[in-house]
Amino acid sequence: MPKVVSHEEQRKRIAEAMWRVILKSGMEGATVRKIAAEAGMSAGALRHYFKNQDDLLIYAMRFVNERVEQRILRLVREDLPPDEKAVRLLLELVPLDAERRAEMDVWFSFMEHVRHRADLTGVPENRMHELICQLLAYLDRERMLRAGLDLALEAERIYAVIDGLAVHALLEPERLRPEEMERVVRTSVSQLCRQP
Amino acid sequence: MPKVVSHEEQRKRIAEAMWRVILKSGMEGATVRKIAAEAGMSAGALRHYFKNQDDLLIYAMRFVNERVEQRILRLVREDLPPDEKAVRLLLELVPLDAERRAEMDVWFSFMEHVRHRADLTGVPENRMHELICQLLAYLDRERMLRAGLDLALEAERIYAVIDGLAVHALLEPERLRPEEMERVVRTSVSQLCRQP
Repeated sequence: MPKVVSHEEQRKRIAEAMWRVILKSGMEGATVRKIAAEAGMSAGALRHYFKNQDDLLIYAMRFVNERVEQRILRLVREDLPPDEKAVRLLLELVPLDAERRAEMDVWFSFMEHVRHRADLTGVPENRMHELICQLLAYLDRERMLRAGLDLALEAERIYAVIDGLAVHALLEPERLRPEEMERVVRTSVSQLCRQP
Repeated sequence: MPKVVSHEEQRKRIAEAMWRVILKSGMEGATVRKIAAEAGMSAGALRHYFKNQDDLLIYAMRFVNERVEQRILRLVREDLPPDEKAVRLLLELVPLDAERRAEMDVWFSFMEHVRHRADLTGVPENRMHELICQLLAYLDRERMLRAGLDLALEAERIYAVIDGLAVHALLEPERLRPEEMERVVRTSVSQLCRQP
């Protein structure tokens, strides 16, 4: 009996093929023809799942977002000391392993493309700044934070550290190793917290 | 008498035309034909100054680097308290005004392009990490730094803050204003320094 592949599973498979093409050649090389070839189908068959390249692009961006958000939700539910939870959550946002590296690599390509595409609708919002603000509010409720911090400024600073590390690890992977990224994140969180 | 324009001035003019095209449509839109039109010449005339698009790309990248480095050299020679000099120098690396914003905008497009171009030779090195290490060593010699800092880690952290702010200001200019960037940079430097 042939394997039944749902419409949604096929869309995911095509989005993953788009990722692989972008990882190799950037958005400039991500034509419908190449993506279809990578997914092992014809361009005509691909159009059965996505009406055009933009439609696929928006879907693939949402797909990255959802993967990150699901890992974060899983972490939020874990039973960990609040400062350790904060560190682990922030580490989900830097390219510590091959999976997260691939996500950020394609995300970087998406961002560079969509910022020149004012005509594009449906681009998912970046919720990372909001997430980091919520994280600091959580540490505050848990009475972990030092007195007198400007939380809006510290959220901006942590957000900058995280995305700066992510960009540097993408562009200079030999120089910036996962251990160093983790040390920078741990130092940044521990500076915000009361000393035990 | 017609204005005499030197070969080098023409190359700069073409590089600036390339910038304008990239600012509008990204690297994907930066064809030789469009760049030549923006510079007010034919594609054939452009080829008199740059043998191909990659040749122009490398030149335009070096041109951005030189502008930033010249502003930094000017600052280094100024007579300022060391911590204020550090703040001003770091502020040269974030998009505080239209000029720096345009530089970083094209730089971001260049980076996204060249990281998928292993075949490209002559891409100028990124010297920002080295510059920031030198800046911390300078603050240390001037006895401005708090005791017990891990300088390599703090350089990595400041470097991440700077490029994180730059990326966020490019992608979310409405949210992240120049005043906030300056506050984040000042806080980051003052945390490294002894309190007066």
